[in-house]
Amino acid sequence: MKDGTAFLNDNAQKIADSVIGEAERLRVSVTKGSLGETLIDAGAKVTGGIEAGLRIAEAAMGGLGTVSLRMDRASEKWPFCIEVRSSQPVLACLGSQYAGWNLSNGSYFAMGSGPARALARVEPLFETLSYKDQAKSAVLVLETADPPPAAVVEKVAKAVKLPAEKLTFLYAPTQSIAGTVQIVARVLEVALHKANDLKFPLENIVDGIAAAPIPAPHPDFLTAMGRTNDAIIYGGGAQLFVKGSPRDAQELAERLPSRASRDYGQPFAAIFKKFKGDFYAIDPLLFSPAEVIVTAIESGDTFRAGSRDQKMLEESLG
Amino acid sequence: MKDGTAFLNDNAQKIADSVIGEAERLRVSVTKGSLGETLIDAGAKVTGGIEAGLRIAEAAMGGLGTVSLRMDRASEKWPFCIEVRSSQPVLACLGSQYAGWNLSNGSYFAMGSGPARALARVEPLFETLSYKDQAKSAVLVLETADPPPAAVVEKVAKAVKLPAEKLTFLYAPTQSIAGTVQIVARVLEVALHKANDLKFPLENIVDGIAAAPIPAPHPDFLTAMGRTNDAIIYGGGAQLFVKGSPRDAQELAERLPSRASRDYGQPFAAIFKKFKGDFYAIDPLLFSPAEVIVTAIESGDTFRAGSRDQKMLEESLG
Amino acid sequence: MKDGTAFLNDNAQKIADSVIGEAERLRVSVTKGSLGETLIDAGAKVTGGIEAGLRIAEAAMGGLGTVSLRMDRASEKWPFCIEVRSSQPVLACLGSQYAGWNLSNGSYFAMGSGPARALARVEPLFETLSYKDQAKSAVLVLETADPPPAAVVEKVAKAVKLPAEKLTFLYAPTQSIAGTVQIVARVLEVALHKANDLKFPLENIVDGIAAAPIPAPHPDFLTAMGRTNDAIIYGGGAQLFVKGSPRDAQELAERLPSRASRDYGQPFAAIFKKFKGDFYAIDPLLFSPAEVIVTAIESGDTFRAGSRDQKMLEESLG
Repeated sequence: MKDGTAFLNDNAQKIADSVIGEAERLRVSVTKGSLGETLIDAGAKVTGGIEAGLRIAEAAMGGLGTVSLRMDRASEKWPFCIEVRSSQPVLACLGSQYAGWNLSNGSYFAMGSGPARALARVEPLFETLSYKDQAKSAVLVLETADPPPAAVVEKVAKAVKLPAEKLTFLYAPTQSIAGTVQIVARVLEVALHKANDLKFPLENIVDGIAAAPIPAPHPDFLTAMGRTNDAIIYGGGAQLFVKGSPRDAQELAERLPSRASRDYGQPFAAIFKKFKGDFYAIDPLLFSPAEVIVTAIESGDTFRAGSRDQKMLEESLG
Repeated sequence: MKDGTAFLNDNAQKIADSVIGEAERLRVSVTKGSLGETLIDAGAKVTGGIEAGLRIAEAAMGGLGTVSLRMDRASEKWPFCIEVRSSQPVLACLGSQYAGWNLSNGSYFAMGSGPARALARVEPLFETLSYKDQAKSAVLVLETADPPPAAVVEKVAKAVKLPAEKLTFLYAPTQSIAGTVQIVARVLEVALHKANDLKFPLENIVDGIAAAPIPAPHPDFLTAMGRTNDAIIYGGGAQLFVKGSPRDAQELAERLPSRASRDYGQPFAAIFKKFKGDFYAIDPLLFSPAEVIVTAIESGDTFRAGSRDQKMLEESLG
Repeated sequence: MKDGTAFLNDNAQKIADSVIGEAERLRVSVTKGSLGETLIDAGAKVTGGIEAGLRIAEAAMGGLGTVSLRMDRASEKWPFCIEVRSSQPVLACLGSQYAGWNLSNGSYFAMGSGPARALARVEPLFETLSYKDQAKSAVLVLETADPPPAAVVEKVAKAVKLPAEKLTFLYAPTQSIAGTVQIVARVLEVALHKANDLKFPLENIVDGIAAAPIPAPHPDFLTAMGRTNDAIIYGGGAQLFVKGSPRDAQELAERLPSRASRDYGQPFAAIFKKFKGDFYAIDPLLFSPAEVIVTAIESGDTFRAGSRDQKMLEESLG
């Protein structure tokens, strides 16, 4: 992909438009905010649902990923899981889906996810990603119960250099069904993000597939957040196709699973409490799938490490 | 969803139009009936097939459901199954897919399924469903080997208040592949219907997924009907996401599986014979999936009950 | 399907056009050849990927099949597999997807696959297939690292009676991810082809589904070819729905699995070496899925034979 090629936001806009067109089927509400921005609520004041969560996840990936519901008997009590794949995993997951844009403002807390990030390019992560999107409209996904206040909309508009009426925000709280689905759909993204933390060269990751079970949504924010994380950390699986030496692929496979983290072994909510709610005190290497397969396409080797942790799933997922 | 919002038949019409456009791929035949109605035969005088069955099922759900083929190793001898999901399960399954409109006329026996029911609203079930569709055309699905006679077409036209040339009938006999697929695709609908029989408030069922294996079609009507029912009763699984108290969710989970019925434990064809072919003498609570998961989204609890019955599947499915 | 009905190439052209429109997402390159033909490289000089492989496979089937990625825990170490289905399996697999058109020229070796074959009809196989496509453009799939030389383009143009600028060639080498995916997607086609070799009447095969695991691509051509074949021969499964007597269906089920071949029991690369690279010395009956289910829809019987061979998969797939 050449620099300057524009399409992540255009793709996401098409998905957002389809969500608007099928608002009733998806049980989302569509309104205009005070600055003319489009607000799609998929789980705060509306019911939303699984289908809405799948669409939000595909929008968050800038249209470069496929997110679907799958049966997987590996996690017996949770037969239905979310499967994510992308033949552009770095752009889809890190350039777009990663919730890395801090949009908190006063009492409003939100981490922006989605392709508007690749227009704004204000995060350190974009120092390693040369991609810059070009678009006439921008799409952002927020894991919140409230639409962004005017100050946040303005901040986004300024950063992406577009008028507010060209912005679309898709949001759903962690506790909603759509929120649960779109968060669990980050099972591939966390693998990519951790690979980057491990200094694996991103340009060598060429394809990826991942899956994780759908936990029961929970009305308590902390429990809901814990479950969505545990679905990935203790129940997720991912396969990455990488270029480079088999040695590097093997090392990636061994270090990538969540169990390689010092904080592995407790439900996420308990870990969060242990660190007194300081998210950034938690070992960032915990955030990855339980089970990892890395296929080195230039040597033909495949390396496998980690495994699902049924005990932890039992303790957390409900 | 507000009352008066119109879209079930419009959605189904789009699906019917795509079936017509891909008639050869799907091996269906499209003709005009004596009153100008559109007749799509998907398994009577034509071969039809799995793909046709999937499309008919989606049309029957008024475009509010996703019906697909999935692998599921849980039923080892029947690795391919039908998966159905909807984030509007009540409307999709009860407002549209349920075969509840008696269209029998003289020697012609047919129960109408599909969104035309939500225009006609002649069944008692619509006393509990406030939804009323509005549309300029109507779609009906029939599990029959023969197209509807003129008298039935007239009856439907009158009930939906549309001219006959605005009606589309999709039909396939129980014994055909497409018939088998579209009947097994009722695995979610039977769960919804039984939940209603159990007086669980329908407005509290907000999302649903279900799956059941594809049995071998059989040339004998009774055997074919038995197999499609057994695929659901002994091989089906469903997960419902519900609002309300965990107590109500638990009770629903415990009462919903087929094994909670007094008639559970024999192949459906044998039960049918035992009651001398009197369908309505059979315990209506038998018609539900074997395995049920109910997730109470307001409390975060999940309840599981029932299990697949491999022995019964072996005896019935072929 | 009536003779003279035209649509395989039209369908494939639509898929090729969507590949061109999403070239960046799919990581393919699109260029024009010296005679004006369209060349889509999906894995030679570009990265390509799984998504590109799935689209190529659907184009190869003339748009009459559905090719998707599925999870299947039956082959534990290879949880992701390719699933293929078609309600027009004979046309999709034999009339289009089979790589039966020898387009080798000098040092250029290629077997043409895809719907252009049904326009050219130069292979003996078309003596048993009455179908003849009509189209204003033609699509061909090649398992090669190099685009077709001008002489091959001219040969194809002449055979399909279209100017070169109306031809689209999709190509990817065996060693690429897209190549791997589109070859494994032949798991249904090999079952159809072997059924024809076994003199089972093709018109009696009315529907089909099949699946096989995705092996790790390998940079060595022979190893890569071996793995894609082994994924099918030792890891593939297929279900065919057939007309005709249960006796014929049973015989088909028993003879169809790969283990019924005299050459079964070694990784394909080893067999290939044993026959000193003479592909045509290998028993053609080896090329079929490991596990077969044949459902006789006119009698309602289902016959099962064969099974996956985990040991061989371990030895070959990586």
